[in-house]
Amino acid sequence: MTVKVSIIGATGYTGAELVRILHRHPEVELMALTTRSYAGLPLHKVYPHLYKYNQITCEEMNLAKIFDISDVVFVALPHGHAMPVALEAARRGKKMIDLGADFRFSDYQVYEKWYKVEHEARKLLGEAVYALPEVNRDEIKGAWLIANPGCYPTSAILALAPLLKQKFVDTGSIIVDSKSGVSGAGRGLSLGTHFCEVNDNFKAYNVATHRHTPEIEQGLGRIAGEDITITFTPHLLPITRGILSTVYAKLSVSAGAEEIREMYLDYYKDEFFVRVLPAGLLPQTKWVAGTNHCDISVTVDARTGRVIVISAIDNLVKGASGQAVQNMNIICGLPEDTALAGPGLYP
Amino acid sequence: MTVKVSIIGATGYTGAELVRILHRHPEVELMALTTRSYAGLPLHKVYPHLYKYNQITCEEMNLAKIFDISDVVFVALPHGHAMPVALEAARRGKKMIDLGADFRFSDYQVYEKWYKVEHEARKLLGEAVYALPEVNRDEIKGAWLIANPGCYPTSAILALAPLLKQKFVDTGSIIVDSKSGVSGAGRGLSLGTHFCEVNDNFKAYNVATHRHTPEIEQGLGRIAGEDITITFTPHLLPITRGILSTVYAKLSVSAGAEEIREMYLDYYKDEFFVRVLPAGLLPQTKWVAGTNHCDISVTVDARTGRVIVISAIDNLVKGASGQAVQNMNIICGLPEDTALAGPGLYP
Amino acid sequence: MTVKVSIIGATGYTGAELVRILHRHPEVELMALTTRSYAGLPLHKVYPHLYKYNQITCEEMNLAKIFDISDVVFVALPHGHAMPVALEAARRGKKMIDLGADFRFSDYQVYEKWYKVEHEARKLLGEAVYALPEVNRDEIKGAWLIANPGCYPTSAILALAPLLKQKFVDTGSIIVDSKSGVSGAGRGLSLGTHFCEVNDNFKAYNVATHRHTPEIEQGLGRIAGEDITITFTPHLLPITRGILSTVYAKLSVSAGAEEIREMYLDYYKDEFFVRVLPAGLLPQTKWVAGTNHCDISVTVDARTGRVIVISAIDNLVKGASGQAVQNMNIICGLPEDTALAGPGLYP
Amino acid sequence: MTVKVSIIGATGYTGAELVRILHRHPEVELMALTTRSYAGLPLHKVYPHLYKYNQITCEEMNLAKIFDISDVVFVALPHGHAMPVALEAARRGKKMIDLGADFRFSDYQVYEKWYKVEHEARKLLGEAVYALPEVNRDEIKGAWLIANPGCYPTSAILALAPLLKQKFVDTGSIIVDSKSGVSGAGRGLSLGTHFCEVNDNFKAYNVATHRHTPEIEQGLGRIAGEDITITFTPHLLPITRGILSTVYAKLSVSAGAEEIREMYLDYYKDEFFVRVLPAGLLPQTKWVAGTNHCDISVTVDARTGRVIVISAIDNLVKGASGQAVQNMNIICGLPEDTALAGPGLYP
Repeated sequence: MTVKVSIIGATGYTGAELVRILHRHPEVELMALTTRSYAGLPLHKVYPHLYKYNQITCEEMNLAKIFDISDVVFVALPHGHAMPVALEAARRGKKMIDLGADFRFSDYQVYEKWYKVEHEARKLLGEAVYALPEVNRDEIKGAWLIANPGCYPTSAILALAPLLKQKFVDTGSIIVDSKSGVSGAGRGLSLGTHFCEVNDNFKAYNVATHRHTPEIEQGLGRIAGEDITITFTPHLLPITRGILSTVYAKLSVSAGAEEIREMYLDYYKDEFFVRVLPAGLLPQTKWVAGTNHCDISVTVDARTGRVIVISAIDNLVKGASGQAVQNMNIICGLPEDTALAGPGLYP
Repeated sequence: MTVKVSIIGATGYTGAELVRILHRHPEVELMALTTRSYAGLPLHKVYPHLYKYNQITCEEMNLAKIFDISDVVFVALPHGHAMPVALEAARRGKKMIDLGADFRFSDYQVYEKWYKVEHEARKLLGEAVYALPEVNRDEIKGAWLIANPGCYPTSAILALAPLLKQKFVDTGSIIVDSKSGVSGAGRGLSLGTHFCEVNDNFKAYNVATHRHTPEIEQGLGRIAGEDITITFTPHLLPITRGILSTVYAKLSVSAGAEEIREMYLDYYKDEFFVRVLPAGLLPQTKWVAGTNHCDISVTVDARTGRVIVISAIDNLVKGASGQAVQNMNIICGLPEDTALAGPGLYP
Repeated sequence: MTVKVSIIGATGYTGAELVRILHRHPEVELMALTTRSYAGLPLHKVYPHLYKYNQITCEEMNLAKIFDISDVVFVALPHGHAMPVALEAARRGKKMIDLGADFRFSDYQVYEKWYKVEHEARKLLGEAVYALPEVNRDEIKGAWLIANPGCYPTSAILALAPLLKQKFVDTGSIIVDSKSGVSGAGRGLSLGTHFCEVNDNFKAYNVATHRHTPEIEQGLGRIAGEDITITFTPHLLPITRGILSTVYAKLSVSAGAEEIREMYLDYYKDEFFVRVLPAGLLPQTKWVAGTNHCDISVTVDARTGRVIVISAIDNLVKGASGQAVQNMNIICGLPEDTALAGPGLYP
Repeated sequence: MTVKVSIIGATGYTGAELVRILHRHPEVELMALTTRSYAGLPLHKVYPHLYKYNQITCEEMNLAKIFDISDVVFVALPHGHAMPVALEAARRGKKMIDLGADFRFSDYQVYEKWYKVEHEARKLLGEAVYALPEVNRDEIKGAWLIANPGCYPTSAILALAPLLKQKFVDTGSIIVDSKSGVSGAGRGLSLGTHFCEVNDNFKAYNVATHRHTPEIEQGLGRIAGEDITITFTPHLLPITRGILSTVYAKLSVSAGAEEIREMYLDYYKDEFFVRVLPAGLLPQTKWVAGTNHCDISVTVDARTGRVIVISAIDNLVKGASGQAVQNMNIICGLPEDTALAGPGLYP
């Protein structure tokens, strides 16, 4: 079986990462790559690390043509641009995986409030599935419209899911302090991603206002079965790939680190991509660089009754393109780790 | 007036930074530099950035000789090594500024518990002053034995002092999530500071067990007038200099960000080295690199009732050698900013 | 005596670096800062590291006003924009220091060929002085129009001047292999300075076509008294500040490293800013970061008869703004190292 | 067919990289991993990026046992330690691939002069093959003792091979200016690889004295059919992986860049791992990171009659462990790119 795949927005970092991963996929045929900036250029001129591997010439987006030739379409565009694509996919009965935010919220009002954009495809929100396989795999299996989770939410929700499922923590006490590499901001130019402004430097940004906040809250709330409000602080690391989230919560039960670690091991026992680290090891972003893994450690601060969970992912893989391929594998009935297994590059 | 100064442990990073700063000091004469590893070498062979500036040859430590020729002795040694120096200083009636932890705790039992070392100079603890000028300048003025604060505690205490002084927060709710550059670990070799293990990487370490925890708690407790227990998580940034602390606390009063910022501006109104940033700006470590400044921002997360204070310092300057010179200026009756004022190097 | 100074193009990196340096200058009063992008903003909002130090509000360029209030005007604009400023300075009889390329070539045809711009102030080229103090200080003293050297040429010419002056090398054999930090490309946005494209990466660029080539050749030719053609290859380092040039030439005389080093020591014996390193030390960019120094080492490859000279500068200081202030000091009759002496920040 | 493989010195960076690559190899069974420092620990405790992938416990080296169970033994030890292993391999009739320098020189005197070690297995030098597949594949096929090339020599010889083969250049004019990432120095601790000493810094080292010089000369000489002496200058980049070599030579024929590029394309037309880049592209180390590729560009400086060839490799892959697996594939009769094909990680 071969899945015919196209990528809309192929020349951003998540688009190029999809190409890299799909190149290793034995069941995928790459059909078309669209771009706003580089139409007419072979992709390997835009990304020479793909030289000798990819011969496709980028083209401007033509939805009719794309859907004619594709079984699955990945959309790697800024938020607000995936809605017309989804409407077309619905008309055609094709599968679509959106790496942006347009279909992540079941409540369009939350989307419109945080993203300052009107939702033009509200009727599809009921069909879209927010797809974090380790949390709701069964729901994903039958979906045609996949809302691929954001990078920060992936790291935060995987860190907290067992605690919330088992009701170990006070849900009002959650703080997520996250640190991300610069590739999370994409390949677009801005002073904030200029080398000299980031190198050998560190800062927080969008404190208490980042758009991933309601996405994390929605994800956690579904697991806990109640509304949850959190404090979320993103920071910018002078590294290219990786998110490390340090998550704090008050324990509502009496439990030690080892007991909680066992609970995590049990919760994730069938999950290849989540690695609950052996006691004594704390995640490092480089241990997961280039992989679809999420590494997790659990510590208890007995002096204050808090649990401190640390998770690390590669924002471009498990936080974007890798998870998108994982979801594609699921909805296409392929082995979930196809093109995704393997240790990362260290050092 | 000329202050005769020697440095014990001059070839570590804090020692070399003392030399750099004191070179700009018009009232200081540098007398002797001691070292365990490089005795007999001119300092500029150990640190060629000082070539043409420093002609002193490093020597092994000889306490009698050092105190014979010095008015003030800086001690930049690992913890456990400053106690005999302080006993000698006491005998001689000389001033001493310890950049390590040996005299930071009024309760020797806290020191012995966290540092796993017996305290050999308990009788001096009553005379030592934990010296954070922006918090207890008056107490510092008459001191002869200065315990220079640790880098993380400096960043955390300056971030929280106004909130605690004004009793704006629930003292049981404090979380300090700190990120430090690698120079905080010193020049000694370890796998954890090997370039390839740190570069393009990020991790937490010593979660819930770092020795700066009780120091922060002691400092906060004195301001609040009550015992305080916090959660403290240090992380290692792939940068050379800088600490950024993201501090969380539950507001116990109803106050907005602007009101709290005004309160900070008032609290620090006479403090040249603390810069409460204009609304809209968040600290970056590079803005304070090479300076004795502590930059601070205040944000309120109205959705959760938390205040988020962010502080940035250069760990080698305000977090170590700069603050040590600031304290020297105070105890010697010199203008406090001598050798310390001036904008940093950016970018 | 107070020199009234303005900066045209103050919000680029070299402009901000001028402000940082001039802040330390006891004889300078900063009058006006112009900018195309940030007019109306206080400079410390554009560069918060200057907060509490600089209160000046940036303004759009008004040449008449600038020259009314200034004795010396620094021009930190892209090439092609300094010519009208110089014409105005000539009319007013004011001093001007251009950090760009417009007045670096005595032959306007060379400028026009390499920079693809017509020269609009050819008549001033005879009055402009290419000002590398360690090479032609006497010529600089009386000048009103200073062409401040480029960053690569400064590093290359200082590396080669003694060899050419003493005719130790075959002038047809010179290769300059240079590596620069990213700040040399300025604060303007481009894919080539995007953090993710530079971090943990390395490349050459503009091989055999870089515009600094004829500038180096002109500078070397004046010292040698003959036309010189070189091969010059620039590379981009994933660092913020610093240029290291590795310079190769065939020895035309029989001489060992120590003999040549002595010759360098003699050539630069009165030059505070050039540090010919002790034998056994090779320059590192960080040893000169934030300083106006040029560090130099000399090695002889006896097996091949080549001399290898390595020089390191901070591209924003000795390679731009520091040298500009050095030149200002010279033309204003001030001590040449004012605001410029002092060791750099290490590590 | 399954090849049973062991690694002596598995816990250094090249050893761990062998494990990473061999994990992808369908025809290899990993038998034993030896180490001096971590015996008794599972490898994934030493390198947690391998967690869930590698379950082998490291052990101390026992040559008898290793050769009992292995068809091929990789030796990733410092120079001087592979000779007894080779003698044992010879006795047993097993294959061995040495990643160090012990068997790279056909003339033991060159080895002893540059490495300051006596050669204890001179009789094997005639059987050892210096194995750079793109240069001498046929010779490699029948070998049992492989001397895997050094990282700098791989980058330099691949850059120059076509020019020397075609006699396009003056062989006395060759200069190799190389820049390497820090992983080339291994995982051992030294001040020179301490993060703070390397980060945001750049330097040359071992100028005109590096041990890879005679290895490059031997490799070039064999291709040219004459003795060649070069100037070689290594530099240390603040990056983890990657070598970029900028190679200069005087053209001895009249040829333009495009003609020479065509000649390179022809020379390497059957070589998958060498990518002669399209005109206009210059190599970047990150484009080959994690891959076995060597990217090459050719530029002609018509003004000086020099050709400038730039090559980029990943020092741990094509410069060490990847090339070692490539050689293993050749001597075992497996497809040469097994476990080695695939685009790298960018950005």
